[in-house]
Amino acid sequence: MSWENNVRKVEPYVAGEQPKQKDIIKLNTNECPYPPAPGVAECAKQMCTDNLRLYPDMNAQKLVDALASYYHVKPEQVFVGVGSDDVLAMSFLTFFNSDKPILFPDITYSFYDVWAELFRIPYHQCPLDEAFQIRKEDYMVPNGGVILANPNAPTGVPESMEVLEEIIRANSDVVVIIDEAYVDFGGESVLPLLEKYDNLLVVQTFSKSRAMAGMRIGFAIGNEKLIGYLQDAKFSFNSYTINMPTIEMGVEAVKDDAYFKEITGKIVATRERVKKEMTQLGFTFTDSKTNFLFATHKNVPAQQIFAALKENGIYVRYWNKPRIDNYLRITIGTDEQMDAMLHFLRQYLK
Amino acid sequence: MSWENNVRKVEPYVAGEQPKQKDIIKLNTNECPYPPAPGVAECAKQMCTDNLRLYPDMNAQKLVDALASYYHVKPEQVFVGVGSDDVLAMSFLTFFNSDKPILFPDITYSFYDVWAELFRIPYHQCPLDEAFQIRKEDYMVPNGGVILANPNAPTGVPESMEVLEEIIRANSDVVVIIDEAYVDFGGESVLPLLEKYDNLLVVQTFSKSRAMAGMRIGFAIGNEKLIGYLQDAKFSFNSYTINMPTIEMGVEAVKDDAYFKEITGKIVATRERVKKEMTQLGFTFTDSKTNFLFATHKNVPAQQIFAALKENGIYVRYWNKPRIDNYLRITIGTDEQMDAMLHFLRQYLK
Repeated sequence: MSWENNVRKVEPYVAGEQPKQKDIIKLNTNECPYPPAPGVAECAKQMCTDNLRLYPDMNAQKLVDALASYYHVKPEQVFVGVGSDDVLAMSFLTFFNSDKPILFPDITYSFYDVWAELFRIPYHQCPLDEAFQIRKEDYMVPNGGVILANPNAPTGVPESMEVLEEIIRANSDVVVIIDEAYVDFGGESVLPLLEKYDNLLVVQTFSKSRAMAGMRIGFAIGNEKLIGYLQDAKFSFNSYTINMPTIEMGVEAVKDDAYFKEITGKIVATRERVKKEMTQLGFTFTDSKTNFLFATHKNVPAQQIFAALKENGIYVRYWNKPRIDNYLRITIGTDEQMDAMLHFLRQYLK
Repeated sequence: MSWENNVRKVEPYVAGEQPKQKDIIKLNTNECPYPPAPGVAECAKQMCTDNLRLYPDMNAQKLVDALASYYHVKPEQVFVGVGSDDVLAMSFLTFFNSDKPILFPDITYSFYDVWAELFRIPYHQCPLDEAFQIRKEDYMVPNGGVILANPNAPTGVPESMEVLEEIIRANSDVVVIIDEAYVDFGGESVLPLLEKYDNLLVVQTFSKSRAMAGMRIGFAIGNEKLIGYLQDAKFSFNSYTINMPTIEMGVEAVKDDAYFKEITGKIVATRERVKKEMTQLGFTFTDSKTNFLFATHKNVPAQQIFAALKENGIYVRYWNKPRIDNYLRITIGTDEQMDAMLHFLRQYLK
């Protein structure tokens, strides 16, 4: 017998391509086109690296406090992780331990089924309707937990607060996770529902709207008991996950609300402008409330446009998967980047 | 029914106290008393924080390459994580999936049973002998995997290469993890055995000998196939774990071998000097090959000395646990810090 028999073999998540070339227009992994808040740069310059010899604060208390204050919750309601993927992975491990399947849409963030497979959690994928909206009755059946991205990815489609609240209320016997990675671009957060529902966990990230994908910061907000269980599991996995620079630079990002509003506002404005211009080129869209567009063209197959863009140094995201194989997911970049893409598309589609 | 029924409830690992006061002498969590390599400070100052808007390299390739080159292995043999705890947690999840118990000593790093509990891995703790050495025959029985800290913690005791090799050879059907967190202070690494055994995983950390506990960097070295499985599991948990500053500053730490040798050499010299002086005060020790001493006093109970030291602002580590409840684990600090402790002990034990 070989040691390989005891290996947990998995099909890992495939992230968007990260090309090494420098001169491309990178609209494929939903990064922010603007730098982090100015305080972050200042913080790096002034960093007392001698302190790196010491363990960081294992509670990342300064960062937790900054988030609690920003979102008007208690520090005990905030959990911080190494990107929202870390927060979600720990949440799957902590909360989804039923024999019944957890529920999520057939088209959504493609990490959900990967975590379910990794932790051997039974799951069922509920088909979205033709408009890529969830059918709420799908989530009114016995289950081991629910996870919904809102707005959803890669479709960009938001659900109404009413539908989400109905689902959270109907599932008081399990944890309902609302993954709000993209909520800061015109979406509506379920955070106010935390006062009414103790089975709700809201997950957000610094990777998109706070321009810090490279720093790996995600967080969850929920009632104290729920966050307590998540902390216990996390401290049983790795006590010190958030390093010292992350705590300090993360705080700077949260503090600068004016900058946050400025860049998210700019991205929303660019999104709506690009949408109009692409409509004139024969594209149609979902009503994205995120930092990306989910676009399909009336004549030219998405895969073909994807390849042509890539050949010209413009990277967007394409999945050869049922139901979405004629769509492109296009991250909103700077106005200049989007104009370069539009310029190419105008020529290409002529 | 409540959502709490599906929660994975765990007894989390308890890390050493991290007091908030600034003026204490902190010898309780085995941190390095010296700052990281000078290149690390320079790196922070020059950091292009604008790039934080982008995801970091998910393979942390520059850091992996630096480690591969330093340890004379292929990059495909190196896995990097958020501290060695992250590396070990992922390794437990990936490799310990047998119905048979994994084996480790009764006295060792107290996170091993926490991970086993978290992942519901059966385990058996094999008693160390009276000299705190392992009994190799304990590890020659059917098992689901073996993990040994070498040198061991909190005892500081190293095992011979011969004994370790016998155990690795006898367990070719499972993965044997050697946790070398403390190997750089006069211990001997099993890395050369990698050429002969494909079931061996060696785990090390930047938290002690590279003075970067605050940065959270750990790594594993093993054969390519084994590292491949570990990568797959890691990419199914969290694709982007190592943030951009960690990659850049980590490389600087690895590059400066002269500094690394200088500070580890100083710590070893201080350890041996302090040991001599404490011997004159009535202490006895294991033959620690780490950055800490494991000390017991002929007359005064360890718990009493621990409390007296703490009251005087000197923090060491004490466990009220069977077999080690008359021992103190004392991290080696600077010569000045150790002299302050010796000064206090001389008065206290008079």
